[in-house]
Amino acid sequence: MVQLGLIGLGKMGFNMRERLRAAGHEVVGYDRNPDVSDTTSLEDLVSKLDAPRIVWIMVPAGEPTRATVTELSNLLAAGDMVIDGGNSKYTDDKLNADLLAAKSIGYLDCGVSGGVWGKDNGYGLMVGGAASDVEKAMPIFDALRPDGPREEGFSHAGDVGAGHYAKMIHNGIEYGMMQAFAEGFELLEAAKVVKDVPAVIKGWQRGTVVRSWLLDLLVRALDEDPELDDLEGYVEDSGEGRWTLEEAINNAVPAPVISAALFARFASRQEHSAAMRAVAALRNQFGGHAVKKVGG
Amino acid sequence: MVQLGLIGLGKMGFNMRERLRAAGHEVVGYDRNPDVSDTTSLEDLVSKLDAPRIVWIMVPAGEPTRATVTELSNLLAAGDMVIDGGNSKYTDDKLNADLLAAKSIGYLDCGVSGGVWGKDNGYGLMVGGAASDVEKAMPIFDALRPDGPREEGFSHAGDVGAGHYAKMIHNGIEYGMMQAFAEGFELLEAAKVVKDVPAVIKGWQRGTVVRSWLLDLLVRALDEDPELDDLEGYVEDSGEGRWTLEEAINNAVPAPVISAALFARFASRQEHSAAMRAVAALRNQFGGHAVKKVGG
Amino acid sequence: MVQLGLIGLGKMGFNMRERLRAAGHEVVGYDRNPDVSDTTSLEDLVSKLDAPRIVWIMVPAGEPTRATVTELSNLLAAGDMVIDGGNSKYTDDKLNADLLAAKSIGYLDCGVSGGVWGKDNGYGLMVGGAASDVEKAMPIFDALRPDGPREEGFSHAGDVGAGHYAKMIHNGIEYGMMQAFAEGFELLEAAKVVKDVPAVIKGWQRGTVVRSWLLDLLVRALDEDPELDDLEGYVEDSGEGRWTLEEAINNAVPAPVISAALFARFASRQEHSAAMRAVAALRNQFGGHAVKKVGG
Amino acid sequence: MVQLGLIGLGKMGFNMRERLRAAGHEVVGYDRNPDVSDTTSLEDLVSKLDAPRIVWIMVPAGEPTRATVTELSNLLAAGDMVIDGGNSKYTDDKLNADLLAAKSIGYLDCGVSGGVWGKDNGYGLMVGGAASDVEKAMPIFDALRPDGPREEGFSHAGDVGAGHYAKMIHNGIEYGMMQAFAEGFELLEAAKVVKDVPAVIKGWQRGTVVRSWLLDLLVRALDEDPELDDLEGYVEDSGEGRWTLEEAINNAVPAPVISAALFARFASRQEHSAAMRAVAALRNQFGGHAVKKVGG
Repeated sequence: MVQLGLIGLGKMGFNMRERLRAAGHEVVGYDRNPDVSDTTSLEDLVSKLDAPRIVWIMVPAGEPTRATVTELSNLLAAGDMVIDGGNSKYTDDKLNADLLAAKSIGYLDCGVSGGVWGKDNGYGLMVGGAASDVEKAMPIFDALRPDGPREEGFSHAGDVGAGHYAKMIHNGIEYGMMQAFAEGFELLEAAKVVKDVPAVIKGWQRGTVVRSWLLDLLVRALDEDPELDDLEGYVEDSGEGRWTLEEAINNAVPAPVISAALFARFASRQEHSAAMRAVAALRNQFGGHAVKKVGG
Repeated sequence: MVQLGLIGLGKMGFNMRERLRAAGHEVVGYDRNPDVSDTTSLEDLVSKLDAPRIVWIMVPAGEPTRATVTELSNLLAAGDMVIDGGNSKYTDDKLNADLLAAKSIGYLDCGVSGGVWGKDNGYGLMVGGAASDVEKAMPIFDALRPDGPREEGFSHAGDVGAGHYAKMIHNGIEYGMMQAFAEGFELLEAAKVVKDVPAVIKGWQRGTVVRSWLLDLLVRALDEDPELDDLEGYVEDSGEGRWTLEEAINNAVPAPVISAALFARFASRQEHSAAMRAVAALRNQFGGHAVKKVGG
Repeated sequence: MVQLGLIGLGKMGFNMRERLRAAGHEVVGYDRNPDVSDTTSLEDLVSKLDAPRIVWIMVPAGEPTRATVTELSNLLAAGDMVIDGGNSKYTDDKLNADLLAAKSIGYLDCGVSGGVWGKDNGYGLMVGGAASDVEKAMPIFDALRPDGPREEGFSHAGDVGAGHYAKMIHNGIEYGMMQAFAEGFELLEAAKVVKDVPAVIKGWQRGTVVRSWLLDLLVRALDEDPELDDLEGYVEDSGEGRWTLEEAINNAVPAPVISAALFARFASRQEHSAAMRAVAALRNQFGGHAVKKVGG
Repeated sequence: MVQLGLIGLGKMGFNMRERLRAAGHEVVGYDRNPDVSDTTSLEDLVSKLDAPRIVWIMVPAGEPTRATVTELSNLLAAGDMVIDGGNSKYTDDKLNADLLAAKSIGYLDCGVSGGVWGKDNGYGLMVGGAASDVEKAMPIFDALRPDGPREEGFSHAGDVGAGHYAKMIHNGIEYGMMQAFAEGFELLEAAKVVKDVPAVIKGWQRGTVVRSWLLDLLVRALDEDPELDDLEGYVEDSGEGRWTLEEAINNAVPAPVISAALFARFASRQEHSAAMRAVAALRNQFGGHAVKKVGG
């Protein structure tokens, strides 16, 4: 059994503490929200851990994570280790690792997949960093990952940054898969040839080529709301989809599906985009085509 | 000077009659609307023309055009000729030509581009059919096409159907070009790095790579409405864009730009598409992500 | 235990006969290849079945299936039933059903998914037709579908045609999912941030959002060929992807992901497409850009 | 008549010197290639200009331009002005302007469009910077821009960076337009319904909606090579297309057409992409589909 400091007890971190404790590990959690926190401050958290310490960060990517790493670099000691399990951009990892390495503190980046289901199912983990550091943290990873062969729910992806890189690409693929299901659902709904759309989708769960966890979730959603009309078709995107597309650009890799999935989300949040107003204006100019006037 | 029967005096046909008459030709027009019609019926129209007759059809594609051809096949005589100048699907042309050929009536299909500007600028023409028939109708084509070298505003594209095929592809390209300008406009609007978007677009009219008639029309639209917000971004599509994509499918030709332009129009007419409701539902299922509830 | 005539003993039909017999059903198979056929002709096959007969067709879609249905309409008797389990276009089903209904022969269309794995895993089934006909064939469907709850591997999708419609959309989704994984794989390969790409992909099999049967197959392929360079990136497409895109056009449904996946396959089979030669020619014209001359 | 220092006498700079001199301006040019250079060094160039000097940089974007600006900041004096006419990323402009402003040297960024045709036709110009600086350089801009109304070939787009931003978007649109023509060309070639593809495209030059300079160039290319098969379909991309897509990402603007055009270029340079090898491998796994083995 090992001891872990865990910073950030939101939806993900809270569940991870539960899963780790259920596996018999000691977790000292810190969150700004005192209702869920085990400690009063990062300083307090560090003081409650025995050296060499492992501290897992699970706070929002970007500035919050970077600031937490900086603060930890001043609190931890040589031989300790920090793991960033958040959704950081992989380029942040090198900065974090260098900052900590200057004080002989180790660093791993860990992409974590599985959402709210991870508490019970386990989390898919992709880790970047030195093999020796990965080895030290393996009891933690083993507790967080799903049951079954380790290599089916955990990978040591490469050097620092590779874990978040793998997670970024994972999410890019996820965008594409979700959009594929979404287009199929819309086609079934629109054509009305299939009478019982939820039944068809439920019937894809076994034996078919498209069987997948996302399909299972779609079935679950349709069980609750058979036409999916309780929700608006307004879809946020997190950083990973955008970063994946940036990587496609940087590496000259065609990514038509992933970009289409991302753009569909952008478009879902627009009403009467400037682009389509321009197309309407052009049609109006050359053809005298009927157009919709605002308020008309 | 030649004589022409012209069926259909809507936005396009009406202007074409004007242009033909201005060129000195005799046009007998028929339209269901007696206010613009020169004749009371197709029978009357045919009786007013000297054999061998040329009758130009300019009515909506599909059933209306097919029905007009059928009616004309019963009214015209061997040696006469029908020209379909509407936006018919190219597969209709073979049917029309065969029907008329059985009575030794000639047939040409003619794609016509230029919109409401054609009356003054002339119309771009793409013609399919036998060379001898094209030759007979050339005075008409010469009057309708723009000034300048004939081969820059007119083409004999091939056999029956080739004229409408060329027009279909022309429109597919047009969809892509319009969407390209539209995306550029939206990017300029969104980023706010460029302060005077209409001035930039106006300044592209000479010397640049993107100079084009569509750009001129965009400038015109921006002169009237600098942010293009009098119109809704709701864009219809006519058959040609869809048929172009069908041709891409049938010929295994990748058409990512033309399809993207068509899909952008489809999406512009949707509110909260089923697809994006499905994506929202999936995110909700796996991540407990914040979503917008209807009415929420 | 029931009795079934099965026409077409290729890769799919052969395995289905195995699975049905393993479940205790009596299968009389016919194939043009005498090495695998149980009978010498369709006539012979029909004579070996007791009325009311059920005959399952598993031959190539289009003309071969249509011809088989026609032949069966002359051999079967009132009260018999035909099931088309091939990859027919859903519009063929109405024609088949009407032809057979004239002789009081029933008809079901059944989309079958699962490939070569179906023999052991069972096949995902989507059925169109009358509920009473579905009921009669249920022992067959139960033997072919995977173990587990019936509704997770079988659906009665709607009237005649709905089964193949559901299968068509299933395959459209499949195209999108495959392309999503493919783009992710290429990005991992290209960027070289992740050192062990197969390990990362293997590690996605449990706990992650992208876990799926296609992912399992990708892991299997990478186990055999870690850089996937034994195969050429030349990908055929079957009818269903194209038909799905046609449905998107017909129903004005944006399908950017499914179309992108289809176009990627088209492009994979081209070398120096006319389109890209045109782009190269344009760049050459306006910019004097360096271009590759053929043989240069 | 004004005096201008011009750094970089490649394809673009050389022609611009010609056009400026033809307009009666004094141009002192510098290039590393002594055969075309008027001076031996930047220092020599600066010494040959009367204060307040205007120096136009026309060297490759990125490091070469940044280095030239740095060097000029040490050679020029307060009241002088630098204009970057290259294809710099707009974010470089702020850096350049700040560096020069520290020495009271002015800075303008100028997007230049028109390629090798600009010498005779004039260049489309988009300028970013202070109005007073724009005013000072106006004689230069007026000589470089096309004849006709100034505002149709020149724009003051906004503050520093806005000129290159406008040029970047211009190029993004250009990518989309080129790909639209390219897809149309390929469809015409593939379907073979149109017998004389070059004639059809030539016939679009007047009266049609797609008439444009790019179309004129396509006609020119087809005049030289009617099937465009002297060139390989291998297409480079410059920075602007990629940056435009980055801007789409950063501003959450859907850019399906521009991205498709960029990805088509990426794909044109690949043979058997990793993505399509992955799709082939998946099909092989689930279906035992025929695939092409390398060397097979």
